[in-house]
Amino acid sequence: MEKFSIAIVGATGLVGQKIMEVLAERKIMANYTLFSSAIEADTKINFMGQELLTKPIYAPKKHEFDFAFFAVDALVSKVWVPVFKKSGAIVIDNSNAFRRKKNVPLVVPGVNDEELKNHHGIIANPNCSTIQLVCALAPLRPLGLKKVLVSTYQAVSGAGKEAIADLENDTKNKFDYKIKDNLIPQIDVFLKNGYTLEEDKLVFESRKILGLNELNISATAVRIPLKNSHSESVFAVFEHKTSVKNLQKRLKNAKHIVLCDNPSQKIYPMPILSNNTDQVYVGRIRKDMNEKNSFWLFVVADNLRRGAAANAVDIFERLISL
Amino acid sequence: MEKFSIAIVGATGLVGQKIMEVLAERKIMANYTLFSSAIEADTKINFMGQELLTKPIYAPKKHEFDFAFFAVDALVSKVWVPVFKKSGAIVIDNSNAFRRKKNVPLVVPGVNDEELKNHHGIIANPNCSTIQLVCALAPLRPLGLKKVLVSTYQAVSGAGKEAIADLENDTKNKFDYKIKDNLIPQIDVFLKNGYTLEEDKLVFESRKILGLNELNISATAVRIPLKNSHSESVFAVFEHKTSVKNLQKRLKNAKHIVLCDNPSQKIYPMPILSNNTDQVYVGRIRKDMNEKNSFWLFVVADNLRRGAAANAVDIFERLISL
Repeated sequence: MEKFSIAIVGATGLVGQKIMEVLAERKIMANYTLFSSAIEADTKINFMGQELLTKPIYAPKKHEFDFAFFAVDALVSKVWVPVFKKSGAIVIDNSNAFRRKKNVPLVVPGVNDEELKNHHGIIANPNCSTIQLVCALAPLRPLGLKKVLVSTYQAVSGAGKEAIADLENDTKNKFDYKIKDNLIPQIDVFLKNGYTLEEDKLVFESRKILGLNELNISATAVRIPLKNSHSESVFAVFEHKTSVKNLQKRLKNAKHIVLCDNPSQKIYPMPILSNNTDQVYVGRIRKDMNEKNSFWLFVVADNLRRGAAANAVDIFERLISL
Repeated sequence: MEKFSIAIVGATGLVGQKIMEVLAERKIMANYTLFSSAIEADTKINFMGQELLTKPIYAPKKHEFDFAFFAVDALVSKVWVPVFKKSGAIVIDNSNAFRRKKNVPLVVPGVNDEELKNHHGIIANPNCSTIQLVCALAPLRPLGLKKVLVSTYQAVSGAGKEAIADLENDTKNKFDYKIKDNLIPQIDVFLKNGYTLEEDKLVFESRKILGLNELNISATAVRIPLKNSHSESVFAVFEHKTSVKNLQKRLKNAKHIVLCDNPSQKIYPMPILSNNTDQVYVGRIRKDMNEKNSFWLFVVADNLRRGAAANAVDIFERLISL
């Protein structure tokens, strides 16, 4: 097999580094070219036994790259993804720039793989908080998802290296407020309806990925003073009669899921379990105290790995196996 | 006016210290006797210009104390509160030991003051996460509370000094798991129905205080790596038609509440606002994206001050004004 040429754009960022970590773990041999911002150009990166220097971004020659992973801000993706696509590369973009475009598949392999067949050179990687949620909800779809309410507990690593430094050093550079000994019930900008863009992403993207355009879903997204792994308190109402045991059974055998639900043994999802793994931990499954067919779940995953890098590499692996 | 004799049991603990802080701020002059565990007996405490030594607990003489604030574990309260009551003291107990007793009023002044008239020597101070919730819900009661779902973000100070040390030093003494760079979706013990006692308290106590025995309310309680102030993501459904503006108006003029709700100016409740205050901060009020008469709110308060000490002292002040 001929080696692919693969570009990684944003190679010095948290997600870019995690994409390389996953590629290396999965021994995906290729001719890699690493891109960083101009300011970080010529950063030495040891990757799969080679020492590579990051390059400032440029318009690739025709067919210079077969694939490009983009792990940069939406504004950078907006400008450069079309350029890479035009050169003939298939782009897997981690940003929010193209997720809502009709001709751009938004894919979580294991949930809606079939969408990959209809790409036009760009595949969007969903938002971190969306990926773990749809992994947990997809196995429960046959029960008829009637309503989903989510409150998130999101780690600072989702906002990049500067945000981690803010937590560790009690500084205030990345966020509008200090995050150490605080929490911030705002992630991304506010929309006119009072929701944040992060909350709106969770709603829009979950509907698109689950193929449930009318899904009754809503969320509150909160940044908490935690380094890594996002958690979600989920309240779900189903059309069909079901039970805790049935939910557990469906989740136990589902793609990406670790059922982690034995309260009497103090076994439930936590960031210390999910960190540095590609699994989605689901537990604390219990019936609502008041209403039929209503359940609480607690869902935890590494936002950089399962919530970004692992999903992006899953997309790549699915694409080349099609 | 003759000075009252007041006992503070648990004077070296976080809540006991906060009770003294509030008593001093409000200049409540009295003859104070401070009690601590035997191990911490003879601790010197400067309180309202006096240097007091803590005493190990003993059975008081008849009418030795007019009032006693108990800020100790439920097991200690269970043994000693009846002893103090029998001596003639009116006991304001911060623990869970008596909250569910029919003849013990569970009171949040400003919400259900009238219950204070029916006490039999013991008044229970509600759980921290309950107090801030009912302060936010009480002004909305006239709209017909149809359903309330709560996900909590609870600070380690709610678990005492040892828990704060665990967060600061990355140790694991108070909790079953490390709390720094982690979160724990368990507070207090598990019940048979899969809920924790903390979640059950929130349900039982909210119903009792709001006088809505059938209230459809349910919760997930989570300990997060934050020093102080509890936050709650609340989803509330009302019987009657209402609007964000109407909710804001009702909350704006309500007891204990600071309406803190201007997203475009990045104004919303946060622990850095509520810490060391006795107010309950409410904001991020918005309509559910899907269903009528359904709203999200975010509620933050200092769990040691509003959630314990200030409410206990409020009870005392109401009692002596009756």
